[in-house]
Order: sequence, then structure tokens, then C-alpha cells
Amino acid sequence: MQEIAVQAGLLDRALRRVSSLWRDMASVVGSNGEVADITARLRDALDARGGEVSARNRAASLAEAYRTLDETGRSDFLHALASFDSDPAAVAQAMEAVAAAADVAERAVATARLRRALEPPRIRLLTAFAAIPDGVKFLVDMRAELMARRDDDKLLQALETDLKALLAAWFDVGFLELRRIDWHSPALQLERLVEYEAVHRIRGWRDLKNRLKADRRCYAFFHPRMPDEPLIFVEVALVQGMADSVQRLLDQKAPTLDPAKSDTAVFYSINNCQRGLDGISFGNFLIKRVVTLLADEFRNIKTFCTLSPIPGYRRWLEAILAGTDSPLTDEERKTLRDVAPLLPETVPGDATAEEILRAMIARRGVLRVEEAQRALEPILSRLCARYLVKEEAPGRPGRARDPVAHFHLSNGARTERLNWRADTSENGYKQSFGLMVNYLYDPERIEENHELYMGEGRRAVSPALRKLARG
Amino acid sequence: MQEIAVQAGLLDRALRRVSSLWRDMASVVGSNGEVADITARLRDALDARGGEVSARNRAASLAEAYRTLDETGRSDFLHALASFDSDPAAVAQAMEAVAAAADVAERAVATARLRRALEPPRIRLLTAFAAIPDGVKFLVDMRAELMARRDDDKLLQALETDLKALLAAWFDVGFLELRRIDWHSPALQLERLVEYEAVHRIRGWRDLKNRLKADRRCYAFFHPRMPDEPLIFVEVALVQGMADSVQRLLDQKAPTLDPAKSDTAVFYSINNCQRGLDGISFGNFLIKRVVTLLADEFRNIKTFCTLSPIPGYRRWLEAILAGTDSPLTDEERKTLRDVAPLLPETVPGDATAEEILRAMIARRGVLRVEEAQRALEPILSRLCARYLVKEEAPGRPGRARDPVAHFHLSNGARTERLNWRADTSENGYKQSFGLMVNYLYDPERIEENHELYMGEGRRAVSPALRKLARG
Amino acid sequence: MQEIAVQAGLLDRALRRVSSLWRDMASVVGSNGEVADITARLRDALDARGGEVSARNRAASLAEAYRTLDETGRSDFLHALASFDSDPAAVAQAMEAVAAAADVAERAVATARLRRALEPPRIRLLTAFAAIPDGVKFLVDMRAELMARRDDDKLLQALETDLKALLAAWFDVGFLELRRIDWHSPALQLERLVEYEAVHRIRGWRDLKNRLKADRRCYAFFHPRMPDEPLIFVEVALVQGMADSVQRLLDQKAPTLDPAKSDTAVFYSINNCQRGLDGISFGNFLIKRVVTLLADEFRNIKTFCTLSPIPGYRRWLEAILAGTDSPLTDEERKTLRDVAPLLPETVPGDATAEEILRAMIARRGVLRVEEAQRALEPILSRLCARYLVKEEAPGRPGRARDPVAHFHLSNGARTERLNWRADTSENGYKQSFGLMVNYLYDPERIEENHELYMGEGRRAVSPALRKLARG
Amino acid sequence: MQEIAVQAGLLDRALRRVSSLWRDMASVVGSNGEVADITARLRDALDARGGEVSARNRAASLAEAYRTLDETGRSDFLHALASFDSDPAAVAQAMEAVAAAADVAERAVATARLRRALEPPRIRLLTAFAAIPDGVKFLVDMRAELMARRDDDKLLQALETDLKALLAAWFDVGFLELRRIDWHSPALQLERLVEYEAVHRIRGWRDLKNRLKADRRCYAFFHPRMPDEPLIFVEVALVQGMADSVQRLLDQKAPTLDPAKSDTAVFYSINNCQRGLDGISFGNFLIKRVVTLLADEFRNIKTFCTLSPIPGYRRWLEAILAGTDSPLTDEERKTLRDVAPLLPETVPGDATAEEILRAMIARRGVLRVEEAQRALEPILSRLCARYLVKEEAPGRPGRARDPVAHFHLSNGARTERLNWRADTSENGYKQSFGLMVNYLYDPERIEENHELYMGEGRRAVSPALRKLARG
Repeated sequence: MQEIAVQAGLLDRALRRVSSLWRDMASVVGSNGEVADITARLRDALDARGGEVSARNRAASLAEAYRTLDETGRSDFLHALASFDSDPAAVAQAMEAVAAAADVAERAVATARLRRALEPPRIRLLTAFAAIPDGVKFLVDMRAELMARRDDDKLLQALETDLKALLAAWFDVGFLELRRIDWHSPALQLERLVEYEAVHRIRGWRDLKNRLKADRRCYAFFHPRMPDEPLIFVEVALVQGMADSVQRLLDQKAPTLDPAKSDTAVFYSINNCQRGLDGISFGNFLIKRVVTLLADEFRNIKTFCTLSPIPGYRRWLEAILAGTDSPLTDEERKTLRDVAPLLPETVPGDATAEEILRAMIARRGVLRVEEAQRALEPILSRLCARYLVKEEAPGRPGRARDPVAHFHLSNGARTERLNWRADTSENGYKQSFGLMVNYLYDPERIEENHELYMGEGRRAVSPALRKLARG
Repeated sequence: MQEIAVQAGLLDRALRRVSSLWRDMASVVGSNGEVADITARLRDALDARGGEVSARNRAASLAEAYRTLDETGRSDFLHALASFDSDPAAVAQAMEAVAAAADVAERAVATARLRRALEPPRIRLLTAFAAIPDGVKFLVDMRAELMARRDDDKLLQALETDLKALLAAWFDVGFLELRRIDWHSPALQLERLVEYEAVHRIRGWRDLKNRLKADRRCYAFFHPRMPDEPLIFVEVALVQGMADSVQRLLDQKAPTLDPAKSDTAVFYSINNCQRGLDGISFGNFLIKRVVTLLADEFRNIKTFCTLSPIPGYRRWLEAILAGTDSPLTDEERKTLRDVAPLLPETVPGDATAEEILRAMIARRGVLRVEEAQRALEPILSRLCARYLVKEEAPGRPGRARDPVAHFHLSNGARTERLNWRADTSENGYKQSFGLMVNYLYDPERIEENHELYMGEGRRAVSPALRKLARG
Repeated sequence: MQEIAVQAGLLDRALRRVSSLWRDMASVVGSNGEVADITARLRDALDARGGEVSARNRAASLAEAYRTLDETGRSDFLHALASFDSDPAAVAQAMEAVAAAADVAERAVATARLRRALEPPRIRLLTAFAAIPDGVKFLVDMRAELMARRDDDKLLQALETDLKALLAAWFDVGFLELRRIDWHSPALQLERLVEYEAVHRIRGWRDLKNRLKADRRCYAFFHPRMPDEPLIFVEVALVQGMADSVQRLLDQKAPTLDPAKSDTAVFYSINNCQRGLDGISFGNFLIKRVVTLLADEFRNIKTFCTLSPIPGYRRWLEAILAGTDSPLTDEERKTLRDVAPLLPETVPGDATAEEILRAMIARRGVLRVEEAQRALEPILSRLCARYLVKEEAPGRPGRARDPVAHFHLSNGARTERLNWRADTSENGYKQSFGLMVNYLYDPERIEENHELYMGEGRRAVSPALRKLARG
Repeated sequence: MQEIAVQAGLLDRALRRVSSLWRDMASVVGSNGEVADITARLRDALDARGGEVSARNRAASLAEAYRTLDETGRSDFLHALASFDSDPAAVAQAMEAVAAAADVAERAVATARLRRALEPPRIRLLTAFAAIPDGVKFLVDMRAELMARRDDDKLLQALETDLKALLAAWFDVGFLELRRIDWHSPALQLERLVEYEAVHRIRGWRDLKNRLKADRRCYAFFHPRMPDEPLIFVEVALVQGMADSVQRLLDQKAPTLDPAKSDTAVFYSINNCQRGLDGISFGNFLIKRVVTLLADEFRNIKTFCTLSPIPGYRRWLEAILAGTDSPLTDEERKTLRDVAPLLPETVPGDATAEEILRAMIARRGVLRVEEAQRALEPILSRLCARYLVKEEAPGRPGRARDPVAHFHLSNGARTERLNWRADTSENGYKQSFGLMVNYLYDPERIEENHELYMGEGRRAVSPALRKLARG
């Protein structure tokens, strides 16, 4: 063990030396490197001169150089890199062989050769880049940059596609490690959580510590080559009964529950951390593995659910209220007209119920007026149920309109319960008037639910919610 | 830390449960599974039914089933698997688009699409197989099987090619860990060394321990997903002066040298461990990284060299002696004729010097006769020097005929010194009459040597050896 | 992590440098160091000169020197060390103060001071010795040496007593780590198992591996400062039903049982590894912690028992047969007289049954004669039951005569079942004619059994065995 | 590895179960447990009933109970615990045997027996307490409580003395681990740094991170049984030249220096973390081991020094100025009289120079007046040099009056340089008008310096500082 440590020490020192060498070389490339120059260097890095080890070192030094480049320099670099495409002549020849294949066997061989001919040399460069310290993170970030730039540039698109394929091979879920994150975890990793948590912002280390205490769990996927960078993480609260308020979950003053007394695990935040891994999904694997872990550790936990935002509800509702088909019932219209005079700001006397509703929901303050709240709760809840249960994504029949709903439904969850005033933050109001929803993960039903949704577009919904949606 | 351990424990238990499930399913497949049936199951595993997690589980259960199959079953399985090739129609269409591309940008996009179309579904299955416990080792071994079978089967060849590409992506040297192996290492790993050491067999744990003591080093590359399986390992002795006898190096009774007093590191055995990773080379990386490590740890070590076998020498010499062009000088002929009568077994009186030599070297015992040895040493040494320094692989001008020589020369080493009676084992005699050679790794010259050899076919050779080769 | 490794590397190097310094100093002391000289050096090491760090380094260098001394040198060293006793004058003064104390409080203070005055300076030296690499092991081994020498030397006895107290403080069970040992453990540790296993010798690595496979468990206590030295270890087999043969347990060709199908854990070997820790017991803690671990991991395991030797049986039986009080019943006597003629070697015709029995059991071969075996089994079994159930250690009423029985009874186990031909090895015959016994650890009964045995000298025995003992 | 994790998981779970059992028992004891009751329970825990394992469990449950007690309960508990002293009769008898011993050997044995007789049973209870989770920390904290209470209670004093001896044996420096703390360390440990740093308060995680970056080092000693609790830690800055301002060292906006370019390591904060380990020193070991580590890692670092506070300077100066012997020179008096009129607040016209100085230094604001500062710097510096170089602790001739000076001098450091405005914080002014001092650790001189200081009371001082002290 100690010996290994010695070696690790030496290796580390050796690497540091190499790194400083790279830094020096990088300074040569500078920020005014032009495409031609970069291309020459990339060619150099592909070249077999000095053997594979040397070639890879040259590639690595280029990667280090990239880090120091400014906006233009990076753009030049990426274009130069993208230009190392497969050889058209070789591809053409290989395509002919495929076309001419006489039988399955011949075809198989010709196809394999075509695949080889199509492999662009830039792939070899990207692979070599991975060998620098933090090289895998470097490529993940490079893809994020490419995604931001690729829109109008077919060459960059092709490069981005190659890079995605490479990353998809490396980041296959089979290679990821599921780790629990808690207050024993390295500060470096915890700092990342603070940075990456986008659903319910972490407001400092105290808030973070509160989310990692005995009745909480946080799990993340990691890649062996990015040991301190979570790829995706989920925050779980172990509670009694399905949670109905995120503020209560995050209350730093709330007492800690003995997890042995909990009966429910609430997944209240799930965050992708690496923009450069978009489209390489592991979210569904994460939820299911965490469910398995918790079910095994706590026999007392019977219910696995989320407390999820409904990000598209308000936008949808405003659009529909502005449209011609009123979503309101007669009774709801009456309620709204009754409550209108009580509002702090005046609504014209001849306003329609739809206009009254639009006016009311335009300001968060409205919920502070008790009568207004009493009037709005059943209306907004019913419409939200309808939104979640029935509304489809434009042009995609069968697919839930709400993206979070779609994610959980396609994972086999059931839309279980709406919660009024579940997120009283400004953002909560802005997205869905403070409404949040529980999706239920019932291990026995996951496959069936998934099947119904993906195959036939039918959604698993609790009877209560289905009834509410019908009004 | 403890908490992580808890989770690991639970996870492990969960996995064991799943594994036993797999075993049950495997028993269903049985050994009489026919191709059709397997194909149906593979299709099932590709199918999206039940979501990605479920699909992967189905694939995984097939991999487990494979393990239990007999010869025929495996053959059926591999053929079924290979048949999941890319869709010819989709490929044809994509090829047309490439052919019709108007400019570079269009071509880039069309090419990317063609690549996608060419991706055979079997790749997805192979990737899913990797997710079982020991899944990566499973695939490495599957490739070894494919390599043994593929000869006359184009479909299996194509499957093997795909698998190699997958493994090459995963086993890129950037993903490997260099670890020192010593007497603190897990027995499981040490057992593998015993199994994989092919150059100088390890004769039990005592011999092994002797190779891991203070003046020895053993390093191996490992992959994170095969944590106890070395991929390649090298054994190093820290000594004074270049070693000239492998038996002395391996002598269990030899005293241990204080490594701080050594001046030379001798790489005396390097072994690839995974047949299924053939063609995915990391040997050159290993030697260079170990040189760096040792140079950093021991400032006293100035010389890095090997003590290497010359596996092709004897075969070559016998062939040339049977040929028409005698490799012998007049003086050598005379020496041989003089020594002939002293031999234990009779050589016909009219035998040519070449015939005498062939007769002599045919039996290892000849070296026990002192006069014979004295006569043979200069002749066999000179011819060996010629073999190493000048002989080329048939049909490959510039390439050293000896495969070990080629390996080290292409890594940038210099052929340094021949050692008579350096390997007195039977195998040592069989390969090269007990001769071994030191290749010298001079960090300052590695690139240049590599360049000369790979670029111009010129070999780095010590002056003494060059002189000897000239005779 | 890497940084820590770096540091560990540097530290290790620094320590190695210091070690070599020590070696040099050691060579100065040489093997002809005389007591006077050593005493001077020990005084030097106690001296505050140069500060505590320097003083400890001097002590450490002495410890290193000790390692190189021959028999006489060590004896001189230990005597010199022992001579650093507490100051008689200071002790006398402190004793007076205790005697003169007026009340409890004064007495408490005076007593504390007396304790301080009694602390011999040699304790400080011993503590300083602990700081060398492997220093704790050094002290453990020093105590083993002292135990071998102390017999007739009161000073060494006193030193040994001090050292025992020091080790007892350090090796309190609260500081020990329970670790599982398996085929993943460092070879260094496994090598120790082979060395320390004294109950059922391990015959090489293959035998060892067989004892560590899936249906086996091996646990050991370790101390943080002796990370590769097991202190005590226990070997467990997971089986179906209480094991009745140690040869079957150790059979390398026996199939491996799926541990999930086992219902019984058999502790078949428990070994203390460090002679220098004699009298500092942790055996009872080990068994109970392993029972807890296994009970938690395998809900299927219902029975925890041992398969134990009966080391004192034969000796006791031979003594009693040579005595005047025959232990045999009339029926047994008849049986023995009937079987006598069938024996391979002749017994005088007028031999008594007791003489016949003595003659028979004198040779292991007797069990190969079927009639003899048939005759002996009930007799030897009954007498063995009596030995285990009733016989008391001479002069210690209430205490089981058999030491292994005493160990397990005082741990709260129950003597459960005798097994005929349970250990067919030569040693097994020599100790107890191949008989072995199962002690049962029933977690519910452990305290009560312990209480009965330790308090009243009553032994927990299974009804069957009790009946057998009665005859 | 995984298997170990499994076991750790199970063990952890088992421990948690036991813990909750303890909690239940604790609730029985309650906060109204009276001494008699506690005494009975402690006796119970000492009792052998049910075996050692059970006895220890009873002791452990008492420790858990202690945690829940209020002030009175704890006081009762500690008194009850302290009352388990050694048996007076047995002690008296053993003392007699010592007194009667005829020769050295007899005396050695009698002394050893007396030691045994003096061992109070409470020590066994304390040892058993150590076995609960966090038991060692529990005892460390218990000693801190005892230290706060013991003043007027001889029984508690005796208990505290025993506990200190126990902790001293366990916390011998040979058992401690030196670990580097950085941003990879567990948050739990970093949180402790924030809590324990008393020299220069850490103002949040950002400040902390700044102290752990590339040009900083933080090392701490840990005990294996308190893995997340630093015992003492030191903060080091790698800089160019001896640091002269702590504010500059802690400036979060200062650029990070490449440590390979530093030439000086500045120990700018050293903190003991565990009040309960007072008097068990490892500070000198820590500094020396860190010097060794850094010297080995960075060959470029030539100077090892501190930047230290002078906590007693101001107090001493005020006392001396109030006394009869003026410390001022005539010239200094003149300077002070000249500057007096320029001060913001009036000093009576007939004030003496000493009164003027006292008035000036009474307010921190004075340093903001440039003339005042110019006048004060040489005077306060000279007097501070005198304080550090010459002043002795009252009644302890040869010992430096300043406690920090004494610590470093006794470690073998040299008082090197005074720094004006080195700590501009309020506390810095309050202690020493912002002056700080560098102590130099020259590995070559440490022993000699220590010797001179401890042996003869002579202090190592740089020539410049000595000259300044002379005035």
C-alpha cells in the first residue's frame, strides 16, 4: 500500500513535470495561432514520427494549448480539428465494394472495411487528447463548446457527432460508479453540487450540509477518469408520507428524522451536471439503482416518489387562456367573477372570467389574499391535472407536454398527486403557481407503465388525479 | 467512508441477487438453444420494450446464458449475434447521399449519417453485455474466442472487428492504471502473474515472492472495470551492471541488493495477459512509463535495458545452414572440422562444416563438452549478431526478422550486447542456444532511434555488436 | 487523494533515509555492546538533550540496534533496559504520603502521585521504541522474547509486566479492526495465515485458497500499527447441518456450496498469532463479532457452532486407565475382551479390559480393523462425553479439564455433540482418537451459559451428550 | 475490496442497531439518575457477569447515557466514576511488601505488584467507554470537562490524572497519522479546521479554500480512532522570502504562486484542536515532520520559518510603563514629547514620555497618524526585541516570557526578525501593536539551539534582532 503510494507520488511528480512542459509549448502556440498553423500541428500530432508515445504527447500538448486560447483561437482550432475528416477517395472505393458485394459474407467484410475507411483521423486526435490530466473532462467540455457553436456549421456538427459517439462509448452506464455523497465527501465534490444544483438552488454550505444529514441521501454517477466530477446526482429525503412542500423539505430548522422511522423516499431534485454529455442519458439508471439501494438498506421504506416541478404549466395555461377555447367550467367562471372585486388591483367590470383569471395569476401577490387563494386553488389544480394527464407535446401525439412529466413517465413512474403551495418560491410561482407533483416509482409497475406510455401513449395516473383532471 | 461502504455492501448484495436471477434464466436457455431461438432473444434484448434499463437487463441475462453454453451453443450464439448487422437498405441510401454531396459541409453531414447507418445493432448488444459483473472481461474473452473461430467465417470476422473497435475505445492507454505489483498485492492478482508469465515460467509462490522482493519491481496496466486482471506486466531487476544471465536473476538464493546501490534496471520479462486484446498495444507505453517512474525514484539508476530472448534465431540458422549459401567463414569451417572428432556422437568423416554445425547444435548436450563450447561460442555469437543486426523479415524490407528485436527497435531501443549462456534452460537452448540480448533504452535517444528504424529501416546497434556482426 | 499519496511517498522516502541512518548507528553498537555501554545509551535516550524529538530518535536507534544483536547482546540489552526502574527514594516518599493521607480526597491525590512515582523510566523507552517502523510489532516480539527468558529473572519479569501493561493499553479490543481475509487480501497477510494456522495446518497456497472460497469465511483482528499482521483469526465454513468431519471441510475437491443455501456456520479453527500478546485476550470478542456479522449477512444461517479438537482427552484417558479406578462398565469390559483376539497384534490372554483398551488405543491402526472400531466407538465416545461434561481441572473445581472446552464454555457456548472419526489425521488420533466436538453458540443463551459456568461451575450441555456421559 | 465493503456495511448496520439500543437504555437512566444509582450501574459494568463482552456492553451503555445527562447528572456521574479507586487495603499490603523487599529483584516484583494494586477500577471503565462509536473522542471530551471541573475537587483531579495517563498512552505520537488536508479532504474535516483555527480566524469556506490552494499546505495529526478529528494542525504558505504580513498571506485576491518557484515555507498558524489532550504535546513533532516532508518535496525551499504572534508583548509593556524603571532611552523620550501635540486627543502638557507612550498605545487609531507611527515604530520595535530576547517568565529564570517564543525556542527555532504592521487586525494590535515575529527553523541548528535554550537558558537570536534589542 505504502509502496503504491510512493509510486503514485512519483508518477504524480512526473506528470506535473510533463504538464509544465505542456504549458511551455502552449505558450508557443499562443492566442494568435492561425488555422493553417494549427492544422500543421494537428497533422504533426497524427504523424507516426517518434512512435505512438511521442505522437500522443504532441497531441496532448495541443490540447493543453487549446485551454489557453481565446474565443477566435478556439474557433480556429475546432475548425482545423474538424477538417481531419475521412479520405473521400478511400470512402468512395469502400462504398463501391459494399455495393458490389455478392453475398452476406462478402458484404459483412466490405461493410467492416467501409466503417474503417469512414473513421476520421480527428477521432484519433480526440482520443489522444483524453490522455492529458483531466483529459476526459476536457473533451466533455469541448463537446459543450461545440454544441454551442455547431448550429450553422456542418463541419463542427460532424466533429460534435464524432465526439458524442466517443463519449457515449466511454460513458456507457456500465462504466459509471454510483457513489453516495455526504458530509464525508471531499469538499471539491460538494462544491460541485452547489454549482450544479439547478432545481432548488443551494444557498451556501449550511444549506448543503442540511441536505446531506441523516434523513437525506444524495447519490451521483461518476466516471473513473473524472473522479471528482459528478455526472448526474439525485437528492432524496427520507420522510413519513409523500412530501407536499419543498420548502418544508429544505427547512434547515426542521428536526432530523430517524431514517429507520421513515416510510417514504422522496426524490426531490435530479440534476445533470455535464452539458457536454447531453443526449447520453443515465437519469433513468440512476433513479432505479437508487431505489434498489434504498429498498435494500431500509426495509421500512415502502414508497418511492418524487416531488417534482411542473415547468411548463403556467406557460401552457396563459396560452390557452389567451386562446378561443376556454378551459373553464361555468361554475369556475362564476367563482372568478365573484372574487374579482376583492382583488387589490382593479379588473375592469366587464372582464371575462378568463381575463380575470389571467389578471389574477399575473401577480404572485394574489395568493396572499385569502379569498383569491381559496377561489384559485380548485381551478388551478384542476387545470394542472388536465395539463399533466391529457396535454400532448405539439406535433408528438402520445407524449406528455410537460418535459419533466415525460421524463418520469418514460421511466415508468405514475403521476400520483398534485400539491398546492408546494413550492412557494418566486420560481415556483413563475412555473406553476407553486404547484408541484409527486411521481410514484412502484418497482412492480415500472415496466408495465413504461410499456403503456412508450408503446401506446397511455399514461399511468392515480385515480384521484384522473378524477381531478376530468373536473 | 463507512457510509459508502454500507452502500457498496448493499449494492453488492443487490447485484448478487440479480446474478442468481440471471443464472436461473440461463438455465432456461440451456445448451440446446438453437440459433433461431437465440436470435429471437437477442432481438428481444435490442427491443425498447420496458425501457432501456429492462432491455439491458435482457441483454445481460443473455451474456450470462452464454457462459453456460457448450461449444456448439456458443458457435450458434456468436453467429446469431453476428447476424445483427446494419440494415443494407439504410446503408445504401446513406451511401447515395454521400456520393451526391455537393460540398465539403454537405459531405461531412452525409458521411456522419452513413457512419450512423453502418453501426450494426450487435454493437449495442455487446455494450449491454459489458454491464454484467465482469462484463468487460467477458467481452475480452469473447473476442479471444472469436479470434480462434473467425478464420473461415466472414460474419464472425466482422463481429470480431466490431468488438475489437469497441475494446480499443475502452482500453485506450489513457484509461489504464499503472500499478506496482508486490507482495502486498491481492493474492488474486499474484495468481494471475503465475498464470500469465510465459517468458520465464514462475514455479510456485516462492519463486514469485523472490521476483517481488526489494531489488525487484513488477508493474502492470489495469483497467478500472477489470480491477484484478493485469493486461500486461513487466518484471524488472535492479542490479549493478547489465544482467547477462536470466538464471542468476531468478536465483532464489541470490542475496537481495539494496536498490539504492543499483545502477541498472533490467526489464527481463514482459507479458501480454489478455489474448482478447491482441492488436491493442500498450507495451511501448508500459516500458516508457516504468522507465520514467524508476528514473524518478532512483537517481542512482543510469541504465535501462532488457535481457531478452531471441526466439527466431535457431530456426533461422537451421534454415540457412540447410540452404546453399553458407554463412560460415573459412576459419569457422576449419574450427568446426577440428572439433568434430571430439563430439560424443559421430559425424560422418566427410561431413561439411555446415553439416557438422547442424549436427552439433541439434543437441543441447553439446555445450557440456568444453571444446565444443569453446568452438561454438564465437561462431554462434557472430551469426546471432548478424541475425539481429541485418536479417529482415521475409517480404518486409527494413523490418527486423526477430519479432522481439522488432518490438524493442520500434520502441526506440538499441541492440546493445549479446550474452552467451544467458539462458541455460531447455527452452533457452531451443530458441537461441542459450544466447540472450540486451536492448538499451536511453531516454535521450528513444525518439531518434525509433525514427531511424521506422522511417528508414536503420537499426540502432552498439558498435561492439555491429563489429561482431561483421565478423 | 493523489496529493495524499504524494505525501505518503515523500514520507516513506524520508523514513527510509532515517532507517538507513539507524542501520549505521546500529552497526556502531555492534554485537559486543556490553551492559554498561547499553545502559549509557539508554540513559542518553531518556535524556532531554536536543529535545523530545531527538531523544526519541536516539531511543529508536537503540531499538534498531537491538534487532542486530546476537543472543548475548540481547540479554545484556534487556537487562540494561529492565534496570531503568522507578526511583526507590521517590517511591518511598510517595508511599509515606499515601499512608499519611487524612481523608479520601487527600488519599486520592497521594495515590495518584504514588502511581506517577512508580512509573519506571523504561516505560518511556519502550514507548519510544514503538515509533520506529514496525515498532509495535517490535515490542510484541520483544515481549515474546521476555516471556521465554523471564522465568528465573525477577528484573526481566518486571520489565515483561510493564510491557504487557503497555501492550494491553494499545491492544484493547476497542482499537482493533475486524477484517475479512479472502483471496483478495494481500499475499503478505495470507502468508501469515499459513504460518500461524496451528490447529489444522495449511498445506500450501492451494489449500489456503480452498479455505477462502465462497462458502468459507476467514476473519481476523488487526491493529492499525501492524496492518499486515493478524492478531487472531478464525476460519468459518458455511454448510448444511453441523459439520462432523474436519477432513470433509478441508477437502479441496468438495464442491462449493452456495452460501445462500447454508444453514450453519462452523468455526473450525481459531488461532492466536502473536505470542507476545499472550494474556491479552480477544478471542471471545472475535467469535461474537463474527457471529453478529454472519447473522446479519445471511438470514438463512440459524446455527453457529464450532468443530473443535479435544486436546486433553487421550492424555486424561490413558492416565485414568493406568489408575486404580476403572472408568469402564461391565458391559464395556466384556466387549473389549471379546474383541481382543481379533486384533492384529496379540494382547496377553489374561489382560484386563483396561489393559486391552490401553493396548488398543496405543496404535492408530486399530481403527482400521472394523470390529475393533465397532467395539471402541461407544466406549471412547462415552468416556469422552464424561471427560467433557464432568471432569475438572486439577485443583480448580468447576473448571472444565479440557482447555478448549473451558475457552468455549467461558464464552457462553454449549457442548453440543460428539463426532466419531471427525479428525482422521495422525494428530487427531493422538489427541482424541479422531473424536471432535461441536460447541454451540446460541446468541440467546450466551450470557446465561456464561453466568452458570463462571458463577456456579455448571456447564451447558446438550441433553444427548449429557445422557451419553451418564452412560 | 468489495467484500470488505460488504462486511463494513453489515458491521455498520449492526453497530447502529446497538447504538439505538443504547439510546433506549440511556433514556432509562434519565437526567435524574442519582449518584447511588449510577454507582450501582458502574459496579454492574465492572462486574464479570455474562462475560467480558457483556460487561463492556454495559459500560458502553453507561457512556451513551452520560451523553444525554444534564449538568448535575454529569457531575454525579463523574463523581461516581471517580469513586472507583484502588482498594486501600490491597495498596497498603503491597506497599508493605515493597518496603520489606530484601534486594533489587524482590523489590522489582513487589513494585510491579504495587503498581497493579494501585490500578483503579475506573481505568477499566474508561477503557470500556472507548469501545463505543466515537468512544475515544468521548474520553477526550470527558477529560476536557474534568479539567474544567477539577479545580476544587481532589477526586475529580485523580480521575482526570488517570484519564490523562490513558490518553497519553493512546495518543503517543507514534500512533498518530500525519495527513495533508486540502480541498480534496472530507467536508467534515474541513469544517473542523474552521472551528478550531484560533490564531487567524477562518471567515467562511471561501477563506478556507484560499488557505488550501496550490501554494499552501495544511497538515494535521490524526488518531486512527478519531479519523475525522484533527488533533493539531499547521498552516503553511510557500512564498518567496520570509513573510512579513499575515494579511498579505491571507489575501484571497493575491495570485497563487507556483510552489516550484517558492524558496520559503512560512508556518503561519498552528492550532491545538482538542482541549482534552492538553499536556499531551505533539506540536514539536508536527513542525519537524512537516519540515522534513516539505524539504523532500520541494528542493527549492531553503528557509523554514514561522510568522508568529507575540501575545504577551503589550501586556508586558503596559506593566513596565506603569512601573518605576523606565524602559525608554533619552532620545526616545524626546521623540515622544515632540510627537505628543500632533495627536488627535490631548495629553496633558506635563505628561512624562512614559505617560505619553501609554496614552498613545492605548488606542489603535494612533497608527493612522503618520507622524505617530513614524515615532512609534522604532520605539515599539526595540522594546519588543528586548521583550523577546531578554525578558524572562516570572519565577522561571532562563525561560522566555512570551509563551509562543518559549514554544518555538524550546523546539530549537531561532528568533529571527520583527515585522512592523504584520498583523493589522484589531487582535493583532491588542496583542502586540501589529508586530509579529519570524522564528527560523534551520534543520542543521535545531538540536543545538534547543540544547542552549533548555540547558542554559540561552536563546538563539539573529544578530540583527539582538542588535535591535540592545537599542
